[in-house]
Amino acid sequence: MELNANHIFSKQLLCMMKNLNKFNNTGSSKDVSSQFFVAGQKVGILTPKVVEELQRYPHVFEISLNPNISPQKTVQMSDKYASYDERTKVMSKVIEDMAQRDAHIALRGWRNELYEVASGPTIPSLLKMERAAVGIFGVRTYGSHMNGFVNHPEKGMCLWIARRSNSKATFPGMLDNMVAGGISSGVGIYETMVKECQEEAGIPPELAKKVVPVGAISYIYEDERGIQPDVQYCFDLEVPFDFVPTVVDREVQSFSLHTIDELKKLIVKDEFKPNCAAVTLHFLIRKGAILPEQVPDYLELIRLLHVQF
Amino acid sequence: MELNANHIFSKQLLCMMKNLNKFNNTGSSKDVSSQFFVAGQKVGILTPKVVEELQRYPHVFEISLNPNISPQKTVQMSDKYASYDERTKVMSKVIEDMAQRDAHIALRGWRNELYEVASGPTIPSLLKMERAAVGIFGVRTYGSHMNGFVNHPEKGMCLWIARRSNSKATFPGMLDNMVAGGISSGVGIYETMVKECQEEAGIPPELAKKVVPVGAISYIYEDERGIQPDVQYCFDLEVPFDFVPTVVDREVQSFSLHTIDELKKLIVKDEFKPNCAAVTLHFLIRKGAILPEQVPDYLELIRLLHVQF
Repeated sequence: MELNANHIFSKQLLCMMKNLNKFNNTGSSKDVSSQFFVAGQKVGILTPKVVEELQRYPHVFEISLNPNISPQKTVQMSDKYASYDERTKVMSKVIEDMAQRDAHIALRGWRNELYEVASGPTIPSLLKMERAAVGIFGVRTYGSHMNGFVNHPEKGMCLWIARRSNSKATFPGMLDNMVAGGISSGVGIYETMVKECQEEAGIPPELAKKVVPVGAISYIYEDERGIQPDVQYCFDLEVPFDFVPTVVDREVQSFSLHTIDELKKLIVKDEFKPNCAAVTLHFLIRKGAILPEQVPDYLELIRLLHVQF
Repeated sequence: MELNANHIFSKQLLCMMKNLNKFNNTGSSKDVSSQFFVAGQKVGILTPKVVEELQRYPHVFEISLNPNISPQKTVQMSDKYASYDERTKVMSKVIEDMAQRDAHIALRGWRNELYEVASGPTIPSLLKMERAAVGIFGVRTYGSHMNGFVNHPEKGMCLWIARRSNSKATFPGMLDNMVAGGISSGVGIYETMVKECQEEAGIPPELAKKVVPVGAISYIYEDERGIQPDVQYCFDLEVPFDFVPTVVDREVQSFSLHTIDELKKLIVKDEFKPNCAAVTLHFLIRKGAILPEQVPDYLELIRLLHVQF
């Protein structure tokens, strides 16, 4: 009976991680996708449909076959756009033209917000592009999440979990890590996290500064709006047993403290924002709360937390 | 100056991890390699040379082209060998024939030891084969390593590091994790670790039982003897500040305690057994001793600790 329950739990975790990594599932565009390079650096992944679309702009994109892997191509922004400004300008023209022709469903949700494109958050940006086009070019995005935990004298290790506001544009009302946010190119990962600890959960700076970087997870999501490779830097913060986070900026509606056993049940439910469930799974694995012998998909889960871009 | 030192350290770590993952480096057989299946389960990776060799045994191996990825093939042991015993018998004949023809350099080091082949250590074995042939068929092997650490009142966190005996067949005299060993199919991962704690470092059972599973690393090595995909389950054990491990079984010649700063220097030196340096890097990342902003290759290092089989 116990064996069976563990096997079901393992399959539920696997299902959650496969949903987050749709790009790697059977029938995805993975085997036929192409790599997108700017200034020699890989910044994105393109579906065959997008590659076909980019053939309309031969002065901007150089498309070559990858001789080893037959249907895959390499798409390179022409080196004649040599500076950040030139690249930003020509990319803006391409995306506006695509939007006018209604070439991609993602551009119907125009955000009027520019996203810095770089091959990593600690590396200088190569260009910026309209946020709505990020998935079309399969550009990797970066964020950081913080697991706030307590060593509770009676309940053992517990985690503070946030519930997102019902008014959030994405995943309203769903469960989230104690503190989470995107990373903007050029702003420090650690500094951003310390700031967000204060802004999102009322954690005083002297406590927030104790956040510990503990690795990163990476996954690749895909839907009709595009390919979404993402990295989340993970941080842990032990907060005192009597510390209670406070709602500050209305991104969050409430916080609640959960035991490890409660979390194991919660992360496989649809109530959790998917990437936050993955960050929590990463925490549970690191803390020895997931046992390799009880969870048959242990190695596959670890693989799906570290999917290659 | 500090920036420069961090960049050099980052590149040294990257070099270490690339050496451990030779199969993924440019010029490796990765792009032209084929997958090896037994009873529908992926158990190995084959070079083109080995695939050519296996064409001599058409009654044993079914070789088909992978239409999506042109030079790659799928090699499947024929389903007519339906049982563990039948598969073991036919594989033994193939390997003995290859050895007699001196078809592969790895078979010159015949071990006369049988290795259980399974798609995971918690999954029933599909067949067993001569240990010297494991790299020819690119069969994944499994082990577990334990980081024994101390929260030292003056020096902060320290790790106990073993030095391998000069008489060991592999990596004599090199640095190793406090406890490490292979996993045999059918024997529990945790049980094996607790047993090895006693046998390798004289850790009493009541302390050894406190080992915590904290994840796994995976990498794929390649040299002239074959392709070697490997998984190491990682365990942590906090030992009391005044505990001193003892040499028990002569696999190890001595133990020494090192601070985090000492370890960062040690793991990039050739003195460390390569996969033990990787296990230590995984520990340092989890403990916040490697900072994402100081080590530019942070994400790439994490990727190389979790290479897909």
